[in-house]
Formats: sequence, structure tokens, C-alpha cells
Amino acid sequence: MWMVKSDRLGHYCGVVGIYSAEKVNIPEWLYYALFSLQHRGQESAGIVYNKNNEKLVMYKDLGMVSQVLGKYLAAEHPSHIGIGHVRYSTHGGNRLENAQPIVVNCNKGRIALAHNGNLSNNDVLKQELVDEGSIFQSTSDTELILHMIARSRKPSFDLALTETLNRLEGAFSITLIHNQTLYAVRDRQGFRPLYIGTKDGHTVIASETCALEILKVHEYREVQPGEIVKINASGSSSNIFAASESTSHCVFEQIYFARPDSEVFGTPVYDMRKKMGAALAQIETHEGDIVVPVPDSGNTAALGYAEEAGLPFEMGLTRSHYAGRSFIMPRIDQRELMVRMKLAPVKSLIKGKRIILIDDSLVRGTTSKILIGLLREAGAREVHLRLSSPELKWPCFFGIDIPTRKELISNHHTPEQIARIVGADSLKFLPIDALFEVLGTRTRHCFACFNGEYPVPVPPIPDIDG
Amino acid sequence: MWMVKSDRLGHYCGVVGIYSAEKVNIPEWLYYALFSLQHRGQESAGIVYNKNNEKLVMYKDLGMVSQVLGKYLAAEHPSHIGIGHVRYSTHGGNRLENAQPIVVNCNKGRIALAHNGNLSNNDVLKQELVDEGSIFQSTSDTELILHMIARSRKPSFDLALTETLNRLEGAFSITLIHNQTLYAVRDRQGFRPLYIGTKDGHTVIASETCALEILKVHEYREVQPGEIVKINASGSSSNIFAASESTSHCVFEQIYFARPDSEVFGTPVYDMRKKMGAALAQIETHEGDIVVPVPDSGNTAALGYAEEAGLPFEMGLTRSHYAGRSFIMPRIDQRELMVRMKLAPVKSLIKGKRIILIDDSLVRGTTSKILIGLLREAGAREVHLRLSSPELKWPCFFGIDIPTRKELISNHHTPEQIARIVGADSLKFLPIDALFEVLGTRTRHCFACFNGEYPVPVPPIPDIDG
Amino acid sequence: MWMVKSDRLGHYCGVVGIYSAEKVNIPEWLYYALFSLQHRGQESAGIVYNKNNEKLVMYKDLGMVSQVLGKYLAAEHPSHIGIGHVRYSTHGGNRLENAQPIVVNCNKGRIALAHNGNLSNNDVLKQELVDEGSIFQSTSDTELILHMIARSRKPSFDLALTETLNRLEGAFSITLIHNQTLYAVRDRQGFRPLYIGTKDGHTVIASETCALEILKVHEYREVQPGEIVKINASGSSSNIFAASESTSHCVFEQIYFARPDSEVFGTPVYDMRKKMGAALAQIETHEGDIVVPVPDSGNTAALGYAEEAGLPFEMGLTRSHYAGRSFIMPRIDQRELMVRMKLAPVKSLIKGKRIILIDDSLVRGTTSKILIGLLREAGAREVHLRLSSPELKWPCFFGIDIPTRKELISNHHTPEQIARIVGADSLKFLPIDALFEVLGTRTRHCFACFNGEYPVPVPPIPDIDG
Amino acid sequence: MWMVKSDRLGHYCGVVGIYSAEKVNIPEWLYYALFSLQHRGQESAGIVYNKNNEKLVMYKDLGMVSQVLGKYLAAEHPSHIGIGHVRYSTHGGNRLENAQPIVVNCNKGRIALAHNGNLSNNDVLKQELVDEGSIFQSTSDTELILHMIARSRKPSFDLALTETLNRLEGAFSITLIHNQTLYAVRDRQGFRPLYIGTKDGHTVIASETCALEILKVHEYREVQPGEIVKINASGSSSNIFAASESTSHCVFEQIYFARPDSEVFGTPVYDMRKKMGAALAQIETHEGDIVVPVPDSGNTAALGYAEEAGLPFEMGLTRSHYAGRSFIMPRIDQRELMVRMKLAPVKSLIKGKRIILIDDSLVRGTTSKILIGLLREAGAREVHLRLSSPELKWPCFFGIDIPTRKELISNHHTPEQIARIVGADSLKFLPIDALFEVLGTRTRHCFACFNGEYPVPVPPIPDIDG
Repeated sequence: MWMVKSDRLGHYCGVVGIYSAEKVNIPEWLYYALFSLQHRGQESAGIVYNKNNEKLVMYKDLGMVSQVLGKYLAAEHPSHIGIGHVRYSTHGGNRLENAQPIVVNCNKGRIALAHNGNLSNNDVLKQELVDEGSIFQSTSDTELILHMIARSRKPSFDLALTETLNRLEGAFSITLIHNQTLYAVRDRQGFRPLYIGTKDGHTVIASETCALEILKVHEYREVQPGEIVKINASGSSSNIFAASESTSHCVFEQIYFARPDSEVFGTPVYDMRKKMGAALAQIETHEGDIVVPVPDSGNTAALGYAEEAGLPFEMGLTRSHYAGRSFIMPRIDQRELMVRMKLAPVKSLIKGKRIILIDDSLVRGTTSKILIGLLREAGAREVHLRLSSPELKWPCFFGIDIPTRKELISNHHTPEQIARIVGADSLKFLPIDALFEVLGTRTRHCFACFNGEYPVPVPPIPDIDG
Repeated sequence: MWMVKSDRLGHYCGVVGIYSAEKVNIPEWLYYALFSLQHRGQESAGIVYNKNNEKLVMYKDLGMVSQVLGKYLAAEHPSHIGIGHVRYSTHGGNRLENAQPIVVNCNKGRIALAHNGNLSNNDVLKQELVDEGSIFQSTSDTELILHMIARSRKPSFDLALTETLNRLEGAFSITLIHNQTLYAVRDRQGFRPLYIGTKDGHTVIASETCALEILKVHEYREVQPGEIVKINASGSSSNIFAASESTSHCVFEQIYFARPDSEVFGTPVYDMRKKMGAALAQIETHEGDIVVPVPDSGNTAALGYAEEAGLPFEMGLTRSHYAGRSFIMPRIDQRELMVRMKLAPVKSLIKGKRIILIDDSLVRGTTSKILIGLLREAGAREVHLRLSSPELKWPCFFGIDIPTRKELISNHHTPEQIARIVGADSLKFLPIDALFEVLGTRTRHCFACFNGEYPVPVPPIPDIDG
Repeated sequence: MWMVKSDRLGHYCGVVGIYSAEKVNIPEWLYYALFSLQHRGQESAGIVYNKNNEKLVMYKDLGMVSQVLGKYLAAEHPSHIGIGHVRYSTHGGNRLENAQPIVVNCNKGRIALAHNGNLSNNDVLKQELVDEGSIFQSTSDTELILHMIARSRKPSFDLALTETLNRLEGAFSITLIHNQTLYAVRDRQGFRPLYIGTKDGHTVIASETCALEILKVHEYREVQPGEIVKINASGSSSNIFAASESTSHCVFEQIYFARPDSEVFGTPVYDMRKKMGAALAQIETHEGDIVVPVPDSGNTAALGYAEEAGLPFEMGLTRSHYAGRSFIMPRIDQRELMVRMKLAPVKSLIKGKRIILIDDSLVRGTTSKILIGLLREAGAREVHLRLSSPELKWPCFFGIDIPTRKELISNHHTPEQIARIVGADSLKFLPIDALFEVLGTRTRHCFACFNGEYPVPVPPIPDIDG
Repeated sequence: MWMVKSDRLGHYCGVVGIYSAEKVNIPEWLYYALFSLQHRGQESAGIVYNKNNEKLVMYKDLGMVSQVLGKYLAAEHPSHIGIGHVRYSTHGGNRLENAQPIVVNCNKGRIALAHNGNLSNNDVLKQELVDEGSIFQSTSDTELILHMIARSRKPSFDLALTETLNRLEGAFSITLIHNQTLYAVRDRQGFRPLYIGTKDGHTVIASETCALEILKVHEYREVQPGEIVKINASGSSSNIFAASESTSHCVFEQIYFARPDSEVFGTPVYDMRKKMGAALAQIETHEGDIVVPVPDSGNTAALGYAEEAGLPFEMGLTRSHYAGRSFIMPRIDQRELMVRMKLAPVKSLIKGKRIILIDDSLVRGTTSKILIGLLREAGAREVHLRLSSPELKWPCFFGIDIPTRKELISNHHTPEQIARIVGADSLKFLPIDALFEVLGTRTRHCFACFNGEYPVPVPPIPDIDG
């Protein structure tokens, strides 16, 4: 069986942390925040909170936030502190062992940790720990980080944490509980977003601002790259564990992952995506009658394109409200039907038109092919596929689940060839230079999935056929 | 506990019927068609098919199509004929007794029937049947129709069916199986839509064309008001059981219920909704900076408004993919959070703007109030609420679940008063004359929920406070 | 997939009715009573109660009492009156349509009815109703009875009920609610048990006394054959709707169906079964070392046998607590494993012994064969199978689900042949004359399944191969 | 909410291991074996098997064997090797983290381990590991053992395992997979049972022989105290890791835990329990009319008592088949009803009799009190409670979940006082000397829960009020 979204990139995780001076119903608050981050991970959900200000209670399971944590809406669990996590599992099916947060007992006491990102040196670190006799029950970096904290010979938890963080390379946005204290940590390059905001005596930390907004925390800032924030009954403090000379923000957060109402890396996602669409319009060489997004991933870019091009924006593909993640088809020949169940063309609108079809990116091209077939069936005269990102060619070591290089259509075909394969009259990617311009910088982001230029050392990369 | 959509109108049902000359996997086909009609009813789903061309097999349960009928995707049930139903239950919670189709044994043999609509003379008919000694296990009109067919003294099933249909008043779009034959029937006024199309030897009948399109049936026509279509191994035939002098198409199908990619009553829904939005723009008296729909019900009208007004269309409210029907909040004080979980403002876009907010209709006003609050919180300078339908004031006897007159905000307040209540800077409904113009006719539709002019006699109507 | 108990006889139903002068939590009480009758039906469970002394509320579903009705243990539903039902479905799988109670609206008002038994003239009655135009949604006799009450032209409900009951032939033990009144009815021959008891102002009616005992109603009497009991706020009354010249108590209630702690037909089940076992001992012609029951159906008879024979009673087959009805094996070759999972021999006890193995009856012989194999595997020297009932040869029209005559092993084989088939060293049934003696009468029971002498006219009986 | 069996002792676990030279459907075999051990743990179930002879696949969850592992009955997973576990969770609710087997990656490779028992020096060992920097995700001894193996500096897995085992004190019966090899290990005192048997090229290891018998392995032996058995493609071998000077078999396995059809510690459980009952009869000082067991825990002892005393054995309390572990009552005042739902007196038998009531042990006395009440209500003239074990007074550190000393009724009351509390006319425990005699030894078992004489050093024991 396989899922509706199999032709999209997957994200690893979203994290949340809450500290409240007054006792509040922390699990319920975590629920709302995690629900807002559901798009960052649909395979498992979990929370840890500090019951009666003492014992750390954990609950996690495979499933969506509403399934796993729904029971917390009906009960009161007054508490000061909690963290939460949603996870998208990647290789080889769901494994409950990899669900987060993870809670451990060790010589530093009891620690709960939730992690978004991927360490690029996890192989090295894990080998070292294994050599020393550590056991691993999961494949998650979270367990690795906890091992390192426990192994540290530093005299205090904070020193052990700092020592550990300084040895980690790659992406990590972390929320953590230790000794009635909530910690938020972000890697020195700021690969993944992490925001913090305070209101009325409670502090909320989350991967995206939408999770703060739902809790009515409207004032916030980024946790800085290389920063550790610490909040407890004595107040909050901030330290830089690693000087942040440069940043490597994941540009795909802005292109596709983050919710359009979120801010990431200091800029509103919606604005950025409209600019990407507009940039596509600026390099247009074909004529179209209407601009149609692949909903919802292409919506905002399509608005930007239409505005810039002076063409009508039309919602020419209707998205079903009922074709969610839980929707599974047992047979492979049902794939086209699955796409049809999710997206349906508005025939009266499409008929006889030249369509500018906007999506955010192209992975394997399979869904695009089906969609363009649907539009032709509905009478489209021409279909011009435009992607608001450059050609996807390289693996990610920092938290995005990209198919193998072999599976990425852009590694084997020119845009012209892809156009023929998917049945488009023309096909254009957003040039990487145009993307630099939209972002206003070519140095503050990681573009490795497009150009193979990794900001930190990474493991050996398979060649184009592997 | 209560549902996310509690401030929207409810629809009663959607129906499907399939006949195939070759044996095909009818239950799987019914699944796809019903999935496309899921928006017409989320409380129960059911199918009946003719196993091995003989015995009628029924399966129905409370739940969504994917839950109730998902098992049919994995198995083969070769068959010639089937009908299906999705239902929205109305008064007093879910009752499995009311799920459809209903299958009965009677003196006419075995009959399976699925029904969309509501009979306006059901009280009279039911009383008559009760007096004669009929028993009722449900409150559905479907059971009533079956009683009447069974009671008829006409010498054949077809005559009994015609006799029965001629006594029914109000709305009914029906699919029915009897004696290896599929029937499709539509009331003489054509209150509810019903389409029929044929391709490659199979015929599909459904409430909306989107259910035909998903099965790749692209050529279709309306089942005519007053028409009975009959399909079996001998071919298909059509009869008019009642001359159709006038029609009373439910205008709310075009305003809100039907899917935007469907055609109903011979016109594309998407086009019609854009025209409604444009008509709102033509009577505009305020200035706005951007046009924002309440997604997804206001999307198409907002596109029409923006185009007509020459203002930017912006998706200023992000709709969560994860806030579906199954999402339930246990406490009443969580209502606002529930709306926040479903819809979130794009702050960077909203801030400082004058918003033209477009929705399809106003029922109680509770959700609008919360949404406008969200927009203000996000920094909107002004919010002007525009509804692409007239003021809703009267009950429906033909298949729409409208709250009591007392609950309808327009029965007690002028638009200006409502604007104050919901916190809008101004509020306008689409005038009914403008609606006539958009439709191109004032005589072919039922507008009773707006103007109280019922096209057929109806039971006594409670006064404005009941 | 198939069930553990596929080689046992099935029962149709159990019924309950409760009336309390004071408002009590009727659904909870019904739960306990139905739980005690769970052995009479495991496929569906349902209740109807009179909420706030007014509206009849029904809840029923496929499943065990604890699954379907468990939610009623946690909530308060103060009420005066209620009925309940457990059902064992028979032909062709579970059908929710056949679940009981059934509630209808008709010209006599609202009626809820629960029924245990089977009408022997249901074909005739149903044909008559069908001819008059009645529709049937289920195959249950309950729906038929309700049709007849509704159809009756008698001026009152009570007269209509009496008229209806007088036309019914066969077995019916009924609880019913109409107009705030609880009724209990039993057919004139008293085929199925029905008990009534009163304590502290509340009256409990149930198929077996164990359902009264759990509610601490220790004083009770049988509802008499042909009796209607009526209980409401004005008190209780009793009428005989049909003179009861003779009775036809189902002897299988005493042999197998009823719980050993129940009393049915005025005699304790436990005592009766011990006597059946003792009667088997009296005709014994072989020597044994120990007496071993097939648990739990053979337990009580084995105790009687051992006592009479002066042999040790030993629990030589351990019954797993975890092999319940919900336990299903997907493959046919797992049948033997399924028996092994339920019953396991005590090797140290069995080894080298001559076993007198006691069960209540023999249907197809498949399970016996597996069990005897298990005993031999465990080292039994001899196995002598003894059944505490005569040879089962004829169908039942009064509420027991007996396999076809073709499937009944005794229709095609002598006891000696069966012994060889199942691998026993010898095999004896309880002679019918011995059964008469145990019962102390040969006239007050129905023995038709043994001797084919039906106490009332029945439909044509298929020959031995059908 | 609380469970039916809350007044019984809890067991920690059952383990299974299977090795087959030919590829067979290992998960299905594990299912049957674990199902037979279900009485040893109902909270979680899990398996690990070696898919395609390579990768270790784990599946475990909270729930019964049939729920958690039922899916394995329908699918083929050809494999050579597997282990399984059922667990009874003890302190503070179910924790999925404690479910077994546990699989880890470490410097010795991939290891899967399932464990039954409790280490008496786990505090010391854990502290040592924590000091060295180990992290603990669960409270299970299993994780501790795996840490120790990983930490060991011995040059091979086998040496590391042996080193680890030599440091463990207390009870452990282990099955383990490493490098395509199945291991079975038992602690040097043989606290918990562990059996091994081979047939047709496959070897089955399990806590009790009933799990071997269901797989038709009828020849078996105990894994010896202090023995490591190792089985792989090269054959099987056995080593003694610790000389076994004395044994400390848990006497409660023979009194209550093991299934009556099992053999443990080289003796059949059924025989032993009958002897315990007979020993009770030998010290009897009161007269009774019938011997009635509390089913099923008192069944076998009651048979022994009745035989010895020459009194009739009667099943005077009917046990419901439907009151299983999954059966939960929400309110505390439903406790008595819960007992009534599980056990019901046979009134006709009990009335006027002097009852010798036999159970295996007395923990808090709450259930006994209710049962004796039921018997009196049913008319018992006298009730004499007899327990086939001595007075329970001390905690267990070797794998049995005994309530606190404060809760154990025998710590605060003489038998005479307890008789008054539970409403018995008299009450007798089996004297410990009589138990010695039944066992034929006073040195080979652990009787610490009765006499406080622990066979190995244990942590400080709370006083009688803690």
C-alpha cells in the first residue's frame, strides 16, 4: 500500500516547547501547537510534560496529532513545562522506536528531548559511541545526542549539553526538558527554523510561527543559530554555544515546507513564495490564458506569477477535502485514480485555454504527468508547467527526505525532455540566480539539493545512478 | 461534543447508480463516485450491488466513504449493477437506521433505493401509511417511498413506481435497483441535481458530474425533471412520469453545496460562483486593498469579485489540511481554538490592509465573528464582509438542513447590525435581484430560503422566533 | 475466516426487561443483565430505554455486550423502563439489520420489541403481510410481529397485541415497551424460558434467572406459557392470551444452552445436567480410570457421571481463558491449532489412563476428533466418548441453529461408526428414554431435534441429505 | 478504572524462542506459543524474527497476543529464528517503553532479547552503568542486560554474554538472538522455569511446557540453572556459565502461576496442586458437605482436597467466559458487580450446604469477602475458606508483583481475624511444613514471600506498614 503524497518531498519533524510561570493545561497547549505543525510530520506525534511540576510524563504513538493526542483535549493536566514533536518517518516504514520525544534517565538526571533536523556527522559520532559500548534502540539522532550528554564528563548538565552541541554537525532545532527547565537549541548554521515568543508569563518555542500564533503569542523572534535558551522558575537566559559566522537556512522551508502563514528565517513565507512566482513570470517566454496552481503547494507562487504577468489566477484544479494522509490505495493501478480523487479539473474553465500550471518543485514527475493528462482531458489547449524552484538533483543531509539521485527526474533529463515525459507543452524551473535574487542573498541559505554545494562536510554522495 | 462545521448549512445526501454491460468491480467504482460526493454527506455511507448478477448485497455504516467502504478497494466483486449513498444526518445525532441505501423485500420483490432530497408532503403520506398499518423504523423518506411502492395495487413494479412517484411532492433524486434493473428518477421540479452519462457500455448516474468525471465519463446530461431512466441487459429507456411545466432548482447547490468542478442544472458551478462574486463587486461602495476568501467556500466568488473590482486576490486565510470532519473538540470554550486550527491569517499580508472578505452565506454569524477577530489580530485596518448570497431567513423543505428561524441571524438583524455583531466595518449580502441576473432567470430556481416563496405547498412554518 | 465454536449449536437470543418505580440507571442495569446472557448470543447487543420517562432511546450494534454497551457503565441515564437483547446471527454472516431490539412508529404509537425464539409459521404470516403490501428490511421475526401489531384493526394496543400473539405459532419470549409500559410475553407452549422477579419496587424479566440474580433479584417465577405481564406506574397485571394445555420446553436449554447456575422451566440446570451424567453412568458397559469433561459444556454432566460411577472426576483438558469468540483464525488448516489453543490435555494425568470423556452433544464430530487426538497424543490408553444427550438428527424451528441434516453426523452413521470416525474406543449417546426419566416427564418438552416429533406444525423438512 | 483481577498476584513475563533448520513461518509459531503463555502477561506482546535469514524485524505493542500479533496468522514470513515475549506491567500503568523484546545495535552487532524474571541487584548494576554514562529509556532489566553486554570489553559476543550473566543476581530466563543464533539462558538458581525441546529439526524454548506442546514438541527438558544453550545452522551447544550449587525455584509457579497442564521445575503442575489440596484436607478440623473451588485458580487443589476428604467436588461457582482482562469497570462501586459478572453461585447446589471453599492464596481478601457473601446469599449454611498456600507476607524481588506489605492481609491479621473479615466460618492456610512435604524438599525452592528467607541478598525491605 502506498500514500497519496508519494511524489512529494518529506520533512523530518516539527518541535514545540512551552514554559508557563502559572500552571496551565500544558498537554492541551502542546496539542494545538503540534496540530499547527502537522504538515511537518504525520507519522507519529508525542509529548512530554512535567506532571505536578515533578515527574516527566511521556505519551507518543504512531498517528496524527488528533488521533494520538486527542484525549488531552478533554482532561486537565496542570503543568509548567512541556515539549512536543511530530515526525515524518523515512526509510523502511513506520518505527515506533523512532517516535519522539525520547525520555531517558542517566547520570545527569532525567532528560526529555525533541529534535528536528539531521546531523551530517551522525555516522562518526555513532561509531564512537558504539565503540565505547553504547546501545541504540532507534536510528534517530535524538538517541545519539542523549548518549553524548550522558557520556560527557563535564561537571554539570549545562556544560555537558554545550560540549555535546559543539560536537554535532548539521541541522538541529531542539527542545529539551531537564530539571524543571525548558531548553531551546538551534545549530550554528540555523538549518531549520526555530522561533520563540513570550506572552503573559508563558514562553512558546516552535519550528514555525504558526504554532505560536495559534496560542496567541504574536510577538516572537528566531532562536539564533548557535543559541541555547533556558527557561525556568528563575527566569530565562540565553547563551551562544557556537559563534555563528555564516548561516545555511534550508531554502526548501521557504519554497515548500513551511506553512504559508508562517514566518521562517525572519521573512514571511507567503511573500517569499509570491516573489518566486513573480520571478518565474519575469522569465516567461510563452503565452498563457490563465494561471492555475497545483493546490495547495503551488497556490502562493501562482498568485505571484499571475500578478506579475497580468494574467487571471484561476483555481482550475479542485482539491478534495477528504483525500488526506490517511487515504491509502491498495493497488498500484489505482495511482491515477488516487490523484483524481485528490484533484479534479474545472472543465468549463480549462476548456480551450492555454494553462500556465504552477507547482513548487518536481521530484519524479509522476504526479505532474497525471495532472497534465487531467487538464488535457478537460480540454486544455496548451499546458505550460512552471516550477518555483530550481532543478532538484542532490541528496539532503540536514533533514529532508529526498528520493535517491536515480529517482530524481532532473538528474537524467533536460527540462525539454521532462516536458515531453510529463506531457507539457513547455516546462521551466526557476533559475537558481533568480532564486538568489528573490532571497536577496546567495550566502545565507543552503542550496545543496539544487547545486550540490554542501555548507558542511557530508558523507560520500552516491553517483547519479544510485 | 460538536463539529468544526457547525456554523454551515448541511446537505442531506448524494446518490450514485452504476450499470455495466460487462461485469466490473462495481463496489470499487461506487467507492470512487461516492468519494467525489463526500461533501454532500459525511455521516454515513453505503452501497448495494448485485453479486454474481443475483443477490443484492448491502453494506453501510456511520462514517466517511474511506472508512466505511475502504475494504472494497482491495477485493474483487464482479457485478453489473450497484447504487450508493452518502448521508448527512440532521436532527438529533447520527442514526444508523437512517443510513442508506435501504433494501426491502415486498410483494414487488427485492428493492434497493437511495434517495437525495426531502418530500414536502411526507407528513401527509406517512400519516396515510401509518393509518393503514405501516411501521416505520427510520425517519427517512426512503422508507416511506418503499412502503408506497409495496402498497401499490398496480400490476407491475414499473406501474407501482410511477403511481408512487406521482404522489410524492418536493425533492427527490433517486437511484434504485429492482430485478436486475437500475432506475434513476428525478422529481418533476428538479430540486436536486441528477446526472447520467454513458461510456464504453457502462452508465453512471450521480448527483453531481464530478462523480461521473472521476470514472472518466465525460459526456453526460441531466436526468430530466419528471424523468424515469431504466437500464438493464435489454438496454436503456426513458419515461416522463410527470410533465415538468416549471423547475425549482435549489439555488444553494450553485451557491455553496456542489463542488466547484461540477456542473449542476446545466451550468458550471465555478462560472456561476465567479459571477456571483462579480455581482457583489458591482454594488460595492467601500474601498478595499485586497480580496480574501473564507476558504474554501468563498474561493470562487472571491476570484470573481477580485477580477471585477480589479483588486488583488490573496489567500489571506490559510486552511489546514488536517482539520476535517473527524476533528472534534470536547469543550465549548475550545470553539475559537477550533476555528484557529482550521484557518489562520497570513499576517504579513493582512497587516495594515483593508480587507474585502468573501464568504458564500451567513447562518448564525459565529464563525464570521471569530474570523474577523483573527484578521484584526493580524493587523487588518478594515474588514468588509461580503456574502455571495442573499439573507438567509426561511426553512427548507427540500433537503437542506437550515437552523431554526430563530437561529438565523438575518431574521433578527439588519446587515448593519450584523456588521456590528461580527465586528466588520461593513457587511453586504448579494441582493436577490442581482442573483436573478446572475442566474439569467428568476423562475427556474427555488429561492424560498431567501424570500419564503415556496414553489410547492409546504407544512406550516414556525414564526421568526421558533 | 471462521470462529472457534463452529462445531457447536447456536442459540438465537436472550432478552431482558426492567421496570423500576424509582428512576434508576436502567442502561447500566440492562448491561449487567445482558452480560449474564452473553452465552445466548454474541453477535449483536442492544438496548432501548425510556429517557426522562419519555422518548425511547435505542442503541445497538454488532459485538459483545462489553464492547457495544460498555459506554453505559460510565454515564447516568435515570429512567424507569428498558429492554435489551443479545443475538446470535445464523445464516450468512452478521447482519446489523437483524440486531434487536427493533423500535418502530406506527398507528399504535412507538413500540420497542425484543424477541427470543423462532416462529414456526413465519412463512405463512410473512406471505400474508407481503401480499398486503408490507416491506421487510430484515429476516427477523421481530419485524414481522411489529407489522402484525400495526396492521391489527383492534381498537387498543393491548387488543392488537393479543390478536397478534394468538396468530403466532412456535417459540417466542418477548419483552416490549409501549406507552411507558413494560410487557413480557411467552408463547403458549413455553418453548423458551422467561423469568420475572420483583424486588424493592423494580421488576426484572429475563431469559434466564442468572440475569435476575446479578441484579440481586433472588425471588422469581416463570412467565407462564401463554401469559402477558404488563407493568407500569399503575402497577402490574397478568393475563393469559392463550390457554396452555401442554408445554414444549426446549430440552436443549437444559442440556447445553442455559448457564449452569440458572434455573429454567422451574428446575435448576446444574442438577438436571448432573442427573444426565449419572444416567450415562448407569448404562456404562466399559471400564474407565478417570472421568474427564470437555470444558465447560461437559463439566456438570461429568460430575454426575463420576459421582454415580464412583470414578475420579479430573479436569484433564485445560481451557484457555483467552480463546473467546473474538478469536478468529484466517486459514482452514489452522483449525486443529485453534482447538489446541482452546483446550490442552494434562499429560501427567492422561498418560496411560482409560478416559471417560464427557460432552453434551455431538454435531459434526470434527472437534471431538481433534480432542480425542490430543488425548491420545498425551498418552491416553483408551478414550470412551459419552454424550449427555441423544443423537441429534432433525432441524429446529423454534430458535436453535442446527446445521443441515446432511451435516449432522448422526444422520449418516451409527454410534459405532462415529466412534471409528472420531477415534474413540467406544461412543454412547444418552438414550432418549433415559432423558425422559431424568426430566421426570416425556410430555412437557420438545424433543424434536432428537426424534423428529414436532409439537406444532412445521414447514416441510428436507430429507437426510439436504 | 481498574481491572477484574486486581486482587490477584501479577506475574512479570513469559518468553519464547524458536529455531528451525528449515524456513518456516516463525511469527505464526511464535503466536501460538505466546498465546499459550498469555496467562503470564497480558499487558504487552512482542516478537522479533530474522526476516529472510538476515534482518531482525521487531513488532510489539500493548495488548493481548491475539490483538497485537493476530495479523501474523494471515501472512507468510518464512524464517529460521525468532523470539517472543508477553509482559505484565506492574508499577504505574502500561508503558510501551517496557514492552519486550528489545532490539539494539551495539559494538557486538544487533541483539534481540526477551527476559522473564527480576534481577535482585539491578539497582547496583544500573547505578554503575549510569555512572559510566549509559542512558535508560525504560525501567526494564532487559535494557540493563543489553547495556552490560555492549559495555563488556571481552573479545567476543559469547564471552561478553557470559561475563554479563555472571554479574546478574536474581531471576532471569532469557531468549536472545545474535548473529543468526538463538540463545536460551537461565539464572543459576533457576528461579523461573525455562524448557527446551526439539522435534523434526526445530527447537522450541519457552517458559512453560504448554507452549511447546501446542507446537507438538512433546519431548523436552529444563534449561538447567546456570546454562546457556546456543542454536544455529551449525547445530546446538550447551555451556554452564555458573555452577549451580543450589536452586531457588519459585514455589508460586507451582501454586498459582503456571498453567495446570504445564510442567515446571521437572514436575507436573496439576499433580502438585492436587497434592496441596490433599494436604489441606489432611489437616481439616471442620465438617463440610461439598468442596467448591474458586474457579479456575482453586480448581485443581479442590479436586485434591475432595478426593482426600472423600467429599463431593462441585462447581458451585460458575465462571463467565466473557469476563476477561479487557473487561473494565469505570466506578469503584461497581467492584462487587464485577465479581458477580465473573462468578455466580449455583443456588440449588449451595443452599443449606456447608461449603469447603478452596482458593490458591489470599492477598488482600477483598474478592474472597465478596464471594463468601455471594455464597451466603445463595443459602450456604457454612463457608470454610481453605487456601492451598501459606500466609503471604513478604515482597518478591524475583519477578512476582506482590502488593505492599501493608496491603497483604496476613501481615496484620491472624487467620481467625481474617475469617471474620471475609465472613468465613473458618479459614485455614496450608502450613509451610505441609508445603515442604508436598514438594518433597524444603531446599530447592524460594519460599521468601511466605517466610522472608531470601535465597540471595536483596535490597532493604520496608517494614510491615510500608
